[in-house]
Amino acid sequence: MSTDATSARVFVGTEPAAGIPAGDRGFAYGDGVFETMRAHAGRVPWWDTHWARLVRGAQRLRLVLPDAAQVRAEAGLLLADGGDAVLKLVVSRGAGERGYAPAPDPIPTWVLSRHPPPPPCRADGLALRWCETRLSIQPALAGIKHCNRLEQVLARAECDAAGVDEGLMRSTDGDVVCATAANLFVLKAGRWATPAVERCGVEGVCRAWALDQLGATQMQLDVTDVEAADALFLCNAVRGILPVTRLADRRWPLHAEVLALQRRLATEHPAFATPAHRPEHP
Amino acid sequence: MSTDATSARVFVGTEPAAGIPAGDRGFAYGDGVFETMRAHAGRVPWWDTHWARLVRGAQRLRLVLPDAAQVRAEAGLLLADGGDAVLKLVVSRGAGERGYAPAPDPIPTWVLSRHPPPPPCRADGLALRWCETRLSIQPALAGIKHCNRLEQVLARAECDAAGVDEGLMRSTDGDVVCATAANLFVLKAGRWATPAVERCGVEGVCRAWALDQLGATQMQLDVTDVEAADALFLCNAVRGILPVTRLADRRWPLHAEVLALQRRLATEHPAFATPAHRPEHP
Repeated sequence: MSTDATSARVFVGTEPAAGIPAGDRGFAYGDGVFETMRAHAGRVPWWDTHWARLVRGAQRLRLVLPDAAQVRAEAGLLLADGGDAVLKLVVSRGAGERGYAPAPDPIPTWVLSRHPPPPPCRADGLALRWCETRLSIQPALAGIKHCNRLEQVLARAECDAAGVDEGLMRSTDGDVVCATAANLFVLKAGRWATPAVERCGVEGVCRAWALDQLGATQMQLDVTDVEAADALFLCNAVRGILPVTRLADRRWPLHAEVLALQRRLATEHPAFATPAHRPEHP
Repeated sequence: MSTDATSARVFVGTEPAAGIPAGDRGFAYGDGVFETMRAHAGRVPWWDTHWARLVRGAQRLRLVLPDAAQVRAEAGLLLADGGDAVLKLVVSRGAGERGYAPAPDPIPTWVLSRHPPPPPCRADGLALRWCETRLSIQPALAGIKHCNRLEQVLARAECDAAGVDEGLMRSTDGDVVCATAANLFVLKAGRWATPAVERCGVEGVCRAWALDQLGATQMQLDVTDVEAADALFLCNAVRGILPVTRLADRRWPLHAEVLALQRRLATEHPAFATPAHRPEHP
C-alpha cells in the first residue's frame, strides 16, 4: 500500500531541498507552471506531450525549466515499483527578492510528486452543474497550464457543495470554456466540437488526442449549444474520456461514440482502461 | 547591516516549519492572500487596516487565517530591533490532496518575512509606461490581495525591459486600473479620481487613506482621461505617495497638491517621510 501514498520530492535547480523556500515566487504569486500526468506500469505514456506543453508555458511566462533529463530520471525513481499512479510536476520561477519583478537569472524550484491513481469513471456517466464562478478572459495566459488557479479552486468548491461530479465554467463573457479540471466536447449534428482556448482555458493533453481522433472543431460555444447537444464528454490526461449523462436538469443516455472513444484510448494507453475494459479486473 | 537583510519565518498552523510543504496549495495554485506592510521604529502603523483587508480576502476565498495575536507577536519579534523595514505576510490554504477541491478543514501555511525598506521616491517623480499586459476582469477576485499575480509579474517585466519606474495597466476592456504594484490617482478639473476596483485591481491600503484625505471619486477612467489629467500620482502601503511626472511622451511638473499629500502622510506616519522631510537625514 505504501506505493499508493503521496510522495514528493522538492528541488531547487538541480539540488534536492527539504521544502519549498520561504521566498519562492510560486508560493507568493502562483508564478509557475504544472503538469499532472497519468502513469501506468511505471511509465508515463504522454510524457513528451506534457513536457512540450510545459515548454510552451515556460516560454510564454519566460520561466526557466529544470533539466528535462533530470526530471525524467526522478520520475523514473518515483515509479520504480512499476505501479499505476498520477505524477504531478510543478515548476516555479524560484525564490526572489520581494516584488513582482522577475530575477534576471532565476533558479527554478520544482516539485515532483506521486499520487494514487484516480477512481474509475462511474459507469453511469458524470453529473455536472453550471458553475457560478466564471473564467476571466486573458489571452496572455490562455492555453497554458500556469499556477494561477483561484478560479478553478472556487468553482470546484461549488461542485463539492452541490454534490455533483464536475462543473462547467463559462467565461465572464458567457462563452462555455471547460470543466474545473477537464476539457469539454459536445456532439452537434453529427460533428464534435470543443471550446477554443485562445482567450481562456487550458490546451489539454487529452483534448489534443480527442481533437485528432474525432476530427473535432475548436469553436465558440454558448450554454444553449451545450444543453442542446446530442452528447457530451469531459476529458483530461489523468482520467481520460469521461462520459456525461447529467447537466443540471438535462439528461443524456450514454452515447455509443463516447464509449467507443473511451475504448480506443484504453487500447492505445492501458493506463486509461476502466475496470470494464480490463479482463483482469472483472 | 544584518537587520536589513531578508529574514523569513514559515509556519504551518501555529507551528514553525523548516520550509513550505511540498504539497502546499499556495505553491500549486496561488491559493492564498498576502499583505506587504511598511514598518517604522519597530511598528506597523497600518497593521489594523492590512489585517482587515486580509480578513476580507480570506472570507471571499474561504481561507482560514492564522491566529491574529500569534502573527502580531511574530511580527514584533522580527521588528524587535526597532528598525525600519517592510514586512510581508503570505497566507495560503495550506497543504492538501492533489486537485482543486479545498480540504474541509485546512490548516493555513503562512510566511512572515522582513525586507529592507524601499529606496526613497525619486525627487523628480516617476516615469511610467502603458503596459501591454492587460488585467483580466474577474469580480470574484477583484479588490482583494490574492496570490494569483502572473499578470503583474508579466507587466513588471515589461517595465524593467523598458527602463521605466512603473507601468499603468488597463483591463482587457481598456479601462485604466492601476500600476503593477500601486494604485493610481488623477486630478481632473480640480477633482481627484481613482479607478474603481469592483471588476479588477486591488483595494489598496494607501488608496483608502488617499481617498479619504482627498475626498476623491472612484470611477471608470480611460487612457485619454489619464493622459489629459492635470496631475497623477501612484500610491501603495510600502512607498506611500509617489508623484508621477512622465507617462510615455507626456510630461507633468511636480504638482503642489501631490507634494502636500506626501507631506501630510509623512506627518501622520513617519515611516513615509522621504529624506527631504526628515530633518535628521539632510
